[in-house]
Amino acid sequence: MLEGYNNGLDDLQGDQPREECGIFGIHGPGLDVARLTYYGLYALQHRGQESAGIAVSDGKMIQLQKDMGLVSEVFDHEKLNSFNGHVAIGHVRYSTTGTNNRLNAQPFVFHTSRGMLALAHNGNLTNISQLRSFLFSAGSAFQSTTDSEIIVNLIARHSKESLVEAIKQSMEEIKGAYSILLLNENKLIGIRDPHGIRPMCLGRRGNAYILASESCALDTVGAEFIRDVEPGEIIIIDDNGLTSCQAFQGRRRAHCVFEYIYFARADSNMDGFKINQVRREMGRQLAREYPVDADIVIPVPDSGIAAARGFAAESGIPFEEGLMKNRYIGRTFIQPSQSIRDLGVRLKLNPIRDVLDGKRVVIVDDSIVRGTTSGKIVNMLRETGVKGVHFCISSPPVIKPCFYGIDISNEKELIACRKPLREIRQLIGADGLHYLSLEGLLEIFGKKRDNFCTACFSGDYPVEIPQVQDRDKFLLE
Amino acid sequence: MLEGYNNGLDDLQGDQPREECGIFGIHGPGLDVARLTYYGLYALQHRGQESAGIAVSDGKMIQLQKDMGLVSEVFDHEKLNSFNGHVAIGHVRYSTTGTNNRLNAQPFVFHTSRGMLALAHNGNLTNISQLRSFLFSAGSAFQSTTDSEIIVNLIARHSKESLVEAIKQSMEEIKGAYSILLLNENKLIGIRDPHGIRPMCLGRRGNAYILASESCALDTVGAEFIRDVEPGEIIIIDDNGLTSCQAFQGRRRAHCVFEYIYFARADSNMDGFKINQVRREMGRQLAREYPVDADIVIPVPDSGIAAARGFAAESGIPFEEGLMKNRYIGRTFIQPSQSIRDLGVRLKLNPIRDVLDGKRVVIVDDSIVRGTTSGKIVNMLRETGVKGVHFCISSPPVIKPCFYGIDISNEKELIACRKPLREIRQLIGADGLHYLSLEGLLEIFGKKRDNFCTACFSGDYPVEIPQVQDRDKFLLE
Amino acid sequence: MLEGYNNGLDDLQGDQPREECGIFGIHGPGLDVARLTYYGLYALQHRGQESAGIAVSDGKMIQLQKDMGLVSEVFDHEKLNSFNGHVAIGHVRYSTTGTNNRLNAQPFVFHTSRGMLALAHNGNLTNISQLRSFLFSAGSAFQSTTDSEIIVNLIARHSKESLVEAIKQSMEEIKGAYSILLLNENKLIGIRDPHGIRPMCLGRRGNAYILASESCALDTVGAEFIRDVEPGEIIIIDDNGLTSCQAFQGRRRAHCVFEYIYFARADSNMDGFKINQVRREMGRQLAREYPVDADIVIPVPDSGIAAARGFAAESGIPFEEGLMKNRYIGRTFIQPSQSIRDLGVRLKLNPIRDVLDGKRVVIVDDSIVRGTTSGKIVNMLRETGVKGVHFCISSPPVIKPCFYGIDISNEKELIACRKPLREIRQLIGADGLHYLSLEGLLEIFGKKRDNFCTACFSGDYPVEIPQVQDRDKFLLE
Amino acid sequence: MLEGYNNGLDDLQGDQPREECGIFGIHGPGLDVARLTYYGLYALQHRGQESAGIAVSDGKMIQLQKDMGLVSEVFDHEKLNSFNGHVAIGHVRYSTTGTNNRLNAQPFVFHTSRGMLALAHNGNLTNISQLRSFLFSAGSAFQSTTDSEIIVNLIARHSKESLVEAIKQSMEEIKGAYSILLLNENKLIGIRDPHGIRPMCLGRRGNAYILASESCALDTVGAEFIRDVEPGEIIIIDDNGLTSCQAFQGRRRAHCVFEYIYFARADSNMDGFKINQVRREMGRQLAREYPVDADIVIPVPDSGIAAARGFAAESGIPFEEGLMKNRYIGRTFIQPSQSIRDLGVRLKLNPIRDVLDGKRVVIVDDSIVRGTTSGKIVNMLRETGVKGVHFCISSPPVIKPCFYGIDISNEKELIACRKPLREIRQLIGADGLHYLSLEGLLEIFGKKRDNFCTACFSGDYPVEIPQVQDRDKFLLE
Repeated sequence: MLEGYNNGLDDLQGDQPREECGIFGIHGPGLDVARLTYYGLYALQHRGQESAGIAVSDGKMIQLQKDMGLVSEVFDHEKLNSFNGHVAIGHVRYSTTGTNNRLNAQPFVFHTSRGMLALAHNGNLTNISQLRSFLFSAGSAFQSTTDSEIIVNLIARHSKESLVEAIKQSMEEIKGAYSILLLNENKLIGIRDPHGIRPMCLGRRGNAYILASESCALDTVGAEFIRDVEPGEIIIIDDNGLTSCQAFQGRRRAHCVFEYIYFARADSNMDGFKINQVRREMGRQLAREYPVDADIVIPVPDSGIAAARGFAAESGIPFEEGLMKNRYIGRTFIQPSQSIRDLGVRLKLNPIRDVLDGKRVVIVDDSIVRGTTSGKIVNMLRETGVKGVHFCISSPPVIKPCFYGIDISNEKELIACRKPLREIRQLIGADGLHYLSLEGLLEIFGKKRDNFCTACFSGDYPVEIPQVQDRDKFLLE
Repeated sequence: MLEGYNNGLDDLQGDQPREECGIFGIHGPGLDVARLTYYGLYALQHRGQESAGIAVSDGKMIQLQKDMGLVSEVFDHEKLNSFNGHVAIGHVRYSTTGTNNRLNAQPFVFHTSRGMLALAHNGNLTNISQLRSFLFSAGSAFQSTTDSEIIVNLIARHSKESLVEAIKQSMEEIKGAYSILLLNENKLIGIRDPHGIRPMCLGRRGNAYILASESCALDTVGAEFIRDVEPGEIIIIDDNGLTSCQAFQGRRRAHCVFEYIYFARADSNMDGFKINQVRREMGRQLAREYPVDADIVIPVPDSGIAAARGFAAESGIPFEEGLMKNRYIGRTFIQPSQSIRDLGVRLKLNPIRDVLDGKRVVIVDDSIVRGTTSGKIVNMLRETGVKGVHFCISSPPVIKPCFYGIDISNEKELIACRKPLREIRQLIGADGLHYLSLEGLLEIFGKKRDNFCTACFSGDYPVEIPQVQDRDKFLLE
Repeated sequence: MLEGYNNGLDDLQGDQPREECGIFGIHGPGLDVARLTYYGLYALQHRGQESAGIAVSDGKMIQLQKDMGLVSEVFDHEKLNSFNGHVAIGHVRYSTTGTNNRLNAQPFVFHTSRGMLALAHNGNLTNISQLRSFLFSAGSAFQSTTDSEIIVNLIARHSKESLVEAIKQSMEEIKGAYSILLLNENKLIGIRDPHGIRPMCLGRRGNAYILASESCALDTVGAEFIRDVEPGEIIIIDDNGLTSCQAFQGRRRAHCVFEYIYFARADSNMDGFKINQVRREMGRQLAREYPVDADIVIPVPDSGIAAARGFAAESGIPFEEGLMKNRYIGRTFIQPSQSIRDLGVRLKLNPIRDVLDGKRVVIVDDSIVRGTTSGKIVNMLRETGVKGVHFCISSPPVIKPCFYGIDISNEKELIACRKPLREIRQLIGADGLHYLSLEGLLEIFGKKRDNFCTACFSGDYPVEIPQVQDRDKFLLE
Repeated sequence: MLEGYNNGLDDLQGDQPREECGIFGIHGPGLDVARLTYYGLYALQHRGQESAGIAVSDGKMIQLQKDMGLVSEVFDHEKLNSFNGHVAIGHVRYSTTGTNNRLNAQPFVFHTSRGMLALAHNGNLTNISQLRSFLFSAGSAFQSTTDSEIIVNLIARHSKESLVEAIKQSMEEIKGAYSILLLNENKLIGIRDPHGIRPMCLGRRGNAYILASESCALDTVGAEFIRDVEPGEIIIIDDNGLTSCQAFQGRRRAHCVFEYIYFARADSNMDGFKINQVRREMGRQLAREYPVDADIVIPVPDSGIAAARGFAAESGIPFEEGLMKNRYIGRTFIQPSQSIRDLGVRLKLNPIRDVLDGKRVVIVDDSIVRGTTSGKIVNMLRETGVKGVHFCISSPPVIKPCFYGIDISNEKELIACRKPLREIRQLIGADGLHYLSLEGLLEIFGKKRDNFCTACFSGDYPVEIPQVQDRDKFLLE
């Protein structure tokens, strides 16, 4: 799997699931909260490159700026300086190619009976179809197809209750995966779904509290990590400090295991585990499951590096960097035309001949979705003089779609869903192919092994998934 | 009054009321409706230069594109060609300097229980504060501060009725001035408020029906003018043709008289009168009311041309073009810095010395709002060698704010509201100053003299105006 | 002939010769010369809309900024404020559609043995082919196909002489039409070709001297007109004041008469004549030459207005504005697609029915080049109910190409060159067609009638024109 | 040293010398040479991010497109498709902050007595001041301050000779470091300076020949590496194939050793050495020179990775990735304001606590120029709980400026020039500091140890450097 923009080149290769979003919020009287949110979003940029937005409140009104593009493209000095206030939320959104995406950029700001309310959301609701029908019949009109409008309309309808009570009641109505930041004129509120599917953590910088998708954002803004937000928890931060309440009791935890495999940044820690260590351990486990005689272990950069290192350490086979990644591919990179289609994956990855020539190679990546890129990489390695290629994947085969916020293609596109292992190996042309076993994956988490959502590997969905008739639409969107 | 962009220069001069919007809709199976809407909006560009948008339906879904800028800036070939469908509406919005204007660009597209619904709106509701409170308490959440969201939410709440019935009921709830185009998957619907304050007319091009703010847009797209839409009328156009119904009976007509004085394009006709003729007649009437001994009559271009011509014809004083207008001032024109502040109005208007030198001049403009520009013009004429200046205004003094969609500043800024005629004359430095009398203005319309809203001249508001506590906010927005 | 951008629409209509450029220079210690140049160029914007540029010297080095677009598009606050200095030149260039136009934007800045030298140029050299060959054989290498590089290289080669002497010697080498502004670290220098084909005038604002293509630029920056620069004159302005010398003696004057017919702004005066008066007089002369029985005289706006007014005054036939011009057509306006090709000229000009219906009309324009637009206008007038159309042109038929800086198409495209008057009349569908006679045109200038270049009407070229083999290339570029 | 854009953040850190440029040329009848050049430049993007340009000839004329920005920003589908031809050159330029950079973007295209000539250049001439004087006195005028104009003017002056002869004679006149690609209507010509200071290699893809700064560009376009271009060699490629000649005999080789330390991509090979291996070996040598007791070896990513790996392998101390690099910092990244200045280097590098906490760390980077970033990194490591920090630099101290195309600041800014090792160590706060010895560096190259330019470490300049009075200007530019 190759990280990067969803530019033309990825259509060639394209084996990446895409995380929906990253969110960041700060309550920091006296601080330049807009700028800290900018840096926080920048640290979360790997979670979304399509759009970026920041909403800031000065206690009276909420200002909003958002647009398509990277954080550094959307905001300039002038825009950041035009913000005024002490509490802010921000959002980055994944890269896609639809039309009207600007309408879907977050945060959203709404005027409600309680005043202004801004919302930034990571995740996906699974009963959106029912919620929409209900709200339609009550007379709601929506301007986007996002979950965010649904959620705010639900909260707005509980206009007689306190805001926290309204949120609680709305959380009982919505189902699915969500980590949400809300901002009204004075308060920063964080909400995590009852299973904790999508991540969110809490940090502090001096007197300021921060809520963010990942701990690397806390590091980047010089904040210390306090703890992860609990599943089902509502955290309210205002001038009186932080209060918390639990909206649900006794639900099972089901943290998205793909965060550990691919999405999260290696330097984050999440729900008790350090991403970097978990990935290293996945590689070690792979090596234990798949003993192989080879000369070197190489990663598919950057996604396979940590696991490849673990594989090398466990197996004793030397780690090498055999593929050089070009880091300058940007949003608008132009695909090869038909006549030079053979350049393919070479534009992004260049094999280092002196490392590879004549070697038997174990190559490690984090996942295979469609399989097209993996085959091109194997082919390129062979052209470079590699004697044998064992492809090792640090996660189990993806056989089921995700309904909780990861853009994993539908079952028809999932290679592992359609073909047995042997055929996949033949298809990508490797001499060996091994996926980390689900059991092997879970062992890494020890006693906490049941705390994770593994639905895309097992079909064991922790939350009710959309009805069949709604599913296609769901997946397409 | 000088037409043009609201660029920096207008802050120098700035004596222009601003029309809120222009709207255009077409139901034309087999036609390139997006392109025709583009041309229609372009013909209405004088009604708004801030933003432009087009929504097109192909019978199944509505596509929307809108952005800040002129019609020709917002749309290019690729964008126009990406539209697909047979029915469309478009909107141009006036120029202002607020933040987040992009959120206020029209049309809006909503998802409702009835499917998609697009709306383009010209005018202002006067009971928006009450409507908003009502909808808030029913749980609505809004993303903009526009009337449009209010209107669609009202319609959406009547989800049990037919669309036309829901519109009718909503029209009973809203008060104020509005000409509205609605688009659902199949229908184009036009609505005009019960007094007909804002204009809308109906045309036909082959089998296609068109609704537009002004008849000049019909001419531009090669359509013939059929008739004005009646006050209170609802016109529904779909594949079965055109049907119409009346939502109100027996309200008085109150067409905005400022359309005739300034807003409408000279080649339009509106509610039975030809704009060009009316303006000519205003000049004639001015000449009758204010006989003066002078050598030439000159207009302030372009707004005073027709009236100046009428004045000349009636008085026998020769018409001349004494001021040359620079037409290249664009949105981003840079103001003179302090050291060359004296250049002032010269950047936009240049006096033609050989026409003016030594002459006694009658200069005709359509209106004075704050008076600053008029003073600068008089001063510039004197510097050019003019012997005497009589300033003639082809409308009565503006003494009251407008709540029906014209951005006339609040009473503190209305010069005619604060000062007697004599002081205004001294302030602008003219030897004579005459405003067309209200009686003189109305005489032009003959038997239809009672069909017009003259509230800004008389304070006689045809529709309930906002309560005092809401008014400031109303005027500021 | 319709003014405006060279957008798609003009390809439909396109009967405009295009002026090459406008130039503006100022020596003004203590003044914000960059900003004054900005306003000066803006006043000259009608002479070129393709690109704009400003070069400013602070006595030590010359800063340059230029780009494609209108003056107000190319420069913003930040860019203007980044200029530092007391002497500046600027340039606007006509609109065309070639590639690499950015390379041709002016001013150019060169490093020479004498230090930095900036140049802005209006006109065309006619012996460029020979000059280029000469310089090539001497080892020159050029980066553009402009005259400007040739001129500076000639000056640079006379490196032993004083700058003024080098200019003089270069002027003896170059042939053709040129008004040039040069800027070195300290001096502003103006040069006009020996026949004075292209215009240039001198003005003063306080202690500052200004050189500009037209006097309207002087008015706009608050400067007084001193005099026109003499043909063959070199004017040098530096901290010691203004000095002048004559590079040539006794050449005949040959001011481009098309400046008076079309290019210059109506409020300029040029080489002793006021543009506005001359155009009025052309109309009077037309009326004398072509007595006709008609109900109204209307102009093609804006180019025919002054002449139409003169025609009306002389003939006694009432002047009316029968065609409404849409002023919002911008650079990127999109052409009608094939299916609505009929909209044609209507998008730009809308007939006012109540003025025209049933009338016998004299319509006045300044020139016809290809004839296509004129035919469309006649057709549109007839559709509007006009009873008869007499087309009157306030200039003689254009039968020869211009080699001195006006983009008049080659002989194959000149309708008057290919067809007799009767056929042209039939082609455009008018009931009558009259061109102002050359004799009639010249009479306007009285005793100075021989001071003008009328080559495009008469073939009487005042300066040697390019050799036949170079001509095509010349015309194409 | 941190790679990346020269954005605001680098001003904070900024310890990077900057490579001047990357060049790529292809002669490929029947191939889409523009697109292949695009991909070649993209592979060389690490050599320059300021501007990009491509010139293509179809045998008759040369088309040019260039602008500020990354290759993927400057070119889009439309632009690439508008190129037509079979032979092309391209250029990427380093990132800087001067004004008017657009004027300095390459390639340049010139019209000369021989026809059109395009040039792309990597390196710096050292006798430019003398050459410019000479050309000035001969009447040349320049539009930029680049070497390129000088070189083409020299070639153009030898107009009587064949092109190759003219190039040869020009090469005798110019001194310094240069790898140059020339393109005329039919030929691709590559030139390398007599000492081979800047790199250039030759490759083949089918019948097409390619010349490029680095071999990674050959890999990326699917070409095989043939050989490096020889110092002093002129390679001419046209429809008749490849011919070569030697312009100089017996000069010593002096390949820039910094290419091996920092500039070249790890997967390139250059003048007989594989970059990746050389860097690994530098790390090994460092470990031999500086035996140290530590728990882990970490690189400063990405520039220190290969050397750190070598250090680990030689010393037996485990390699770890202790710093996470944020890869999304773009051109317009906004610096922290004063109040959060402490965030400093954290925005770009985040320490991974579980890797570092309590450890004694060897950190490896390729060079220190000003030392500011190194100190910040040490400080950040200590805050993360590191017990001891040994900073190891895989190159000798930079004590002299470079005049051959690397932007190494002048002596006042070179920390190693101003301070003894002990003070630098104290300044950056490390427990130990070691630079690779020059002897140790050269040993890596074995018998070829005398083939490299080490002037920045030793002051031993292989080519005459600019005279003292010209030097400041030289360094500033």
